Amino acid sequence: MKQLDRELWSDAVRGLVPYRPGEQPSPGERVIKLNTNENPYPPSPACLSALREGINADLRLYPDPEGRRLKETIAAAYGLGAENIFLGNGSDEVLAHAFLALLKQGRPILFPDITYSFYPVYCALYGIAYETIPLDGAFQVIVADYDRPNGGIVLANPNAPTGIAIGLAQIRSLLEQSPRSVVLVDEAYVDFGAESAVPLVAEYPNLLVVQTYSKSRALAGLRISMACGAPSLVTALNTVKNSFNSYPLDRLALIGAEAAFRDKEYFHNTCRRIMESREWLAGKLPDLGFEVLPSRANFLFVRHPSRRGGELQHRLRQRGILVRHFPAPRIEDFLRISIGTPEECRTLVETLGEILAH
Amino acid sequence: MKQLDRELWSDAVRGLVPYRPGEQPSPGERVIKLNTNENPYPPSPACLSALREGINADLRLYPDPEGRRLKETIAAAYGLGAENIFLGNGSDEVLAHAFLALLKQGRPILFPDITYSFYPVYCALYGIAYETIPLDGAFQVIVADYDRPNGGIVLANPNAPTGIAIGLAQIRSLLEQSPRSVVLVDEAYVDFGAESAVPLVAEYPNLLVVQTYSKSRALAGLRISMACGAPSLVTALNTVKNSFNSYPLDRLALIGAEAAFRDKEYFHNTCRRIMESREWLAGKLPDLGFEVLPSRANFLFVRHPSRRGGELQHRLRQRGILVRHFPAPRIEDFLRISIGTPEECRTLVETLGEILAH
Repeated sequence: MKQLDRELWSDAVRGLVPYRPGEQPSPGERVIKLNTNENPYPPSPACLSALREGINADLRLYPDPEGRRLKETIAAAYGLGAENIFLGNGSDEVLAHAFLALLKQGRPILFPDITYSFYPVYCALYGIAYETIPLDGAFQVIVADYDRPNGGIVLANPNAPTGIAIGLAQIRSLLEQSPRSVVLVDEAYVDFGAESAVPLVAEYPNLLVVQTYSKSRALAGLRISMACGAPSLVTALNTVKNSFNSYPLDRLALIGAEAAFRDKEYFHNTCRRIMESREWLAGKLPDLGFEVLPSRANFLFVRHPSRRGGELQHRLRQRGILVRHFPAPRIEDFLRISIGTPEECRTLVETLGEILAH
Repeated sequence: MKQLDRELWSDAVRGLVPYRPGEQPSPGERVIKLNTNENPYPPSPACLSALREGINADLRLYPDPEGRRLKETIAAAYGLGAENIFLGNGSDEVLAHAFLALLKQGRPILFPDITYSFYPVYCALYGIAYETIPLDGAFQVIVADYDRPNGGIVLANPNAPTGIAIGLAQIRSLLEQSPRSVVLVDEAYVDFGAESAVPLVAEYPNLLVVQTYSKSRALAGLRISMACGAPSLVTALNTVKNSFNSYPLDRLALIGAEAAFRDKEYFHNTCRRIMESREWLAGKLPDLGFEVLPSRANFLFVRHPSRRGGELQHRLRQRGILVRHFPAPRIEDFLRISIGTPEECRTLVETLGEILAH
């Protein structure tokens, strides 16, 4: 085959450096998987049962392109209308649409120097200028630092990979400091003990809150996310979505999301158990010498004073435990450890103890 | 709520006119649905059974971001490698990525004046210049008309909404006329009697073939599509995909697609039955006075000499039959009728007979 190599590529693709998700082990490989912040518990039984009923001849038909039923279910729970809700095929897609629809402005957008590393990738994809604002020495977001001209603000709350959250008063300050900018609050991890900004949606027309069903609803395998904001913001998102893919959520994702959302008891129980495991692990790791950042997420961000992050990740991998390591400035000696089951957390502590003893 | 209206939108969104998919009736509404080219038969029993097995605790885990197993299954059947295959969340997404990754060039891209109406929407979304090339008086693609400087060529084969196909010799001419341009062949309907260009992939580094599982595999509800081309083209697509959404296909879509692809007997049988129904319908409609374009797709594009297309669509809708009508130049008096079951086809003919008798 004659290879034209990159001659046929659009300029837009040259130089793009994609996001790299955490390792997905081969099917059948037995590992303790604490590297991509999945939920250690299965999806709600009610969700699995609804999905089973959804496996039928109707799969030959397109899904509802608007996902109206799911939107109405979510909106009702938040005291909002379906026109406040946008749905997408996982938070990555929802964020991508939001960057293009709302954050490609005359001025650079702002986000922290240490945050979800997909944000600069969207900026590269769509040609969006951005500036990063350093977290302080304790890896905290200082809201006053964002009080400058900007084309939008993107904040993960709790932040990733630190796990540190800010409160609603600080979110209000951000919204009021920059009333002509969209403030996108990415709440992928909010259900593990942080405060959601959804109640502020009715008050602030410049607020967009993004949530995912991949973590607290245990549906990473189904790819579901929602954004919540003023109707004007949702209309912009829908305009981009409907110029990209009419039907981003398949029939089973719509069914599974609705059933998972309705099963509030299971949701609260599993979130609570994960928070309990997090607190247990956050209490044990300092005994091994680790510094543990205060997390409101389903992961801990930890650093050992005498061991390199990459080395620890590698040695855990050899022992069948996957954790995430980011070879980036300021955080290269940290590990991000997803909260597993109590047993997985115990095994992690034991294994780290063995590694550190040598 | 204070409304900032469109002040917060990116310029990219203003003026975008999204694609409008065909009507999806409310759940429970009893209609004969011949308006979005869905398969009248359910997904393969083997596919439904594999999906049922996939409803388990593993849905808490992310899917394989590369969909390696599905790629290998498809590639092996075509005598290609996994590096020739790209996967996406339905053809709309795959096409969107292809427009951005491969068709945003210095020169305008070319596609027919009458074709899938999403193509100009992608151009608007990504700022891609295009020129439309008129189909001839019989609604045929004349390949020589594309022999001019261009930034790429997009051709649905069979074309939509006409259903008319061109042969591989003509596809070869297109590829050889424009060797420095990507020729994207959108084969959404190819399995209903047209020739696929997939066997040309190994020969032409500028060919990208896109296929969907929504029509011939009866999985519109699961959102699966694949593109097939030289590794360099697939790399460009993956670069955009991985800068947009790491995991576009969920676990169940990957499982269902693989099982559906493997069940070749069911696939061939249902495609054959649909083609038989198409030929039956194409034989009956002229008795009612309709002109019927020669279709190689799972729909017919038909026009009545004395009734407006919009009027016929409306009167069919009143009688519980959905068909598609495009209020566009040259085709505003046509109806696009998806091929249903034999019974649905008979009901359609009877109903049209009644409408035309008044």
